[in-house]
Amino acid sequence: MARLPDHDPRIADVSEGELLRVILARTPQAELAQLGPGDDAAVVAAPSRSVVATTDTLVHGPDFRLAWSSGYDLGWKAAAVNLADVAAMGARPTALLVALAIPRDMPVSFIERLADGLREACVALAPGCAVVGGDLTASDVLMIAVTALGDLEGRPAVTRSGARAGDVVALAGELGQASRGLGMLFTRFREDGEPVPVDESVLTDSERTALAAQLRPSPPIGLGIVAARAGATAMMDVSDGLALDARRLARASGVSVDLHGDALGPDRASALGGGEDHGLLATFPRGSVPDGFRVIGDVVAADEAFSIRCDGRPVEEDGWDPYRDWDAAAG
Amino acid sequence: MARLPDHDPRIADVSEGELLRVILARTPQAELAQLGPGDDAAVVAAPSRSVVATTDTLVHGPDFRLAWSSGYDLGWKAAAVNLADVAAMGARPTALLVALAIPRDMPVSFIERLADGLREACVALAPGCAVVGGDLTASDVLMIAVTALGDLEGRPAVTRSGARAGDVVALAGELGQASRGLGMLFTRFREDGEPVPVDESVLTDSERTALAAQLRPSPPIGLGIVAARAGATAMMDVSDGLALDARRLARASGVSVDLHGDALGPDRASALGGGEDHGLLATFPRGSVPDGFRVIGDVVAADEAFSIRCDGRPVEEDGWDPYRDWDAAAG
Repeated sequence: MARLPDHDPRIADVSEGELLRVILARTPQAELAQLGPGDDAAVVAAPSRSVVATTDTLVHGPDFRLAWSSGYDLGWKAAAVNLADVAAMGARPTALLVALAIPRDMPVSFIERLADGLREACVALAPGCAVVGGDLTASDVLMIAVTALGDLEGRPAVTRSGARAGDVVALAGELGQASRGLGMLFTRFREDGEPVPVDESVLTDSERTALAAQLRPSPPIGLGIVAARAGATAMMDVSDGLALDARRLARASGVSVDLHGDALGPDRASALGGGEDHGLLATFPRGSVPDGFRVIGDVVAADEAFSIRCDGRPVEEDGWDPYRDWDAAAG
Repeated sequence: MARLPDHDPRIADVSEGELLRVILARTPQAELAQLGPGDDAAVVAAPSRSVVATTDTLVHGPDFRLAWSSGYDLGWKAAAVNLADVAAMGARPTALLVALAIPRDMPVSFIERLADGLREACVALAPGCAVVGGDLTASDVLMIAVTALGDLEGRPAVTRSGARAGDVVALAGELGQASRGLGMLFTRFREDGEPVPVDESVLTDSERTALAAQLRPSPPIGLGIVAARAGATAMMDVSDGLALDARRLARASGVSVDLHGDALGPDRASALGGGEDHGLLATFPRGSVPDGFRVIGDVVAADEAFSIRCDGRPVEEDGWDPYRDWDAAAG
């Protein structure tokens, strides 16, 4: 880096090789990596003879705004949402691959912070998992596509389709916080419709918690394995709101779900409709719910009148597209 | 699809679920998929207890232009370039994950063709491999990020770093064709600097071959396994031109490489500098070169005077950025 411009160099000022070195210097070795970055492909151990794999992309505009998200936030969130999908199968995350498309005028320091966020999310949420490979491309729009790999450690995958009537429905993680954070961004940190930087000094502690849930979510990754070991019959990541995601689980399993309203907290609408919480929704045989999960309902036989019911009333909400809804609210 | 608009619906006209069904209807099951699309993550068998993983992104603008590439071309190329990276490790490609960021005004039919291209590239180049998962996002810029997984079938990975003095350097695939195709696009199918559709009727057979090498490359995927079985000491995908990629292999292995000019064909500059051919460059113990590879040089002891030499003269070219060079040529 000795020959870089002294102050705040841009992507266009450095070669792809230099940018790669900046990122790799911030990337520890994954515990199960057999061959890390630098060759045509990475090699990652798959001790249980299968690999769990998922990919999720964040695109500037629909998925995040640079006025609101730092590089660190973006790296953290891109890792966290993918780790949550691996955890939702009952697997241990082992490795990330990161495809970055970066505008040429982005500061290199932004990408350094992004690499820091990727690393620290792995350390905090899925120790042993780290970036093993990736790709850098120029683009007019900043985009990060992460693929996460995981190992099932000999257990069967916990799918969405195994819930049975008589099971209980349980949740690990928060409901509605991330959407509350996004709501604050849209209502309090825009001017003339455009995002402006967040002034955290005007926020209460509880508001800061909600904002962090939106910008740097901390899904309960380790509880995915705990649930699988405890005999979870079905599990999924709650990314699009409890109502929509519980409906998906119910339909995949051929059952209906009866939620307990008092388990959803005071703001039931946010709990049912808010997206991006990335908690783990799971079903367990009665009496098998492990620590870290709380019971929020019952699995019942498929009922034509409802697939999701809350305190006896069918739930009509069918998920929530935060950008659509917030834009409408502000329009 | 019954409720879609009759004529040429756009992405904005369909739900994410409908678009996903359009794509999945065109996606066969991967041979080693244990759980395909539809859950939080896919599960793919990894019989040899490790997984090869690589990711590569194509962004509209720097990596392709819609005036030149059809949806089919784009899907095919996105698959092919990732399959080549798996093959270059000596592995068998097992599965693809596909992250698509799509402008809302793109026709759904474009995405259908893209899914066709992904599928048919797998069928043609890596039978048994198929799409097992992915992600759809809205974006102002069309982008496709593919992650390819592979299995080493019990063999060690063939890295870039195992070439030894005394080995021969061999190549499977073409040199310079893809850059010749790109050159034709830039010089003959632009108006006022902007890409215009290709009129294939004005092309000779040999020009059509070069164009296909650029738009729908067919790397010799199966020969990656053949090379590994034959005892290749090092291997890599030639994506940035032979000169740069052979230099990378030489440096990783701590050797120098002596290329035979007469093995590079009549257009030596294109052979050394042309990118995107995606052939396989490998080194073998003398006498072990398998069918499908041709000898193009020798591995020699590391020499301070050169890392790559051709017919005794050090090669100075350090790769070739096709868009940069062609834009400059046209400017």
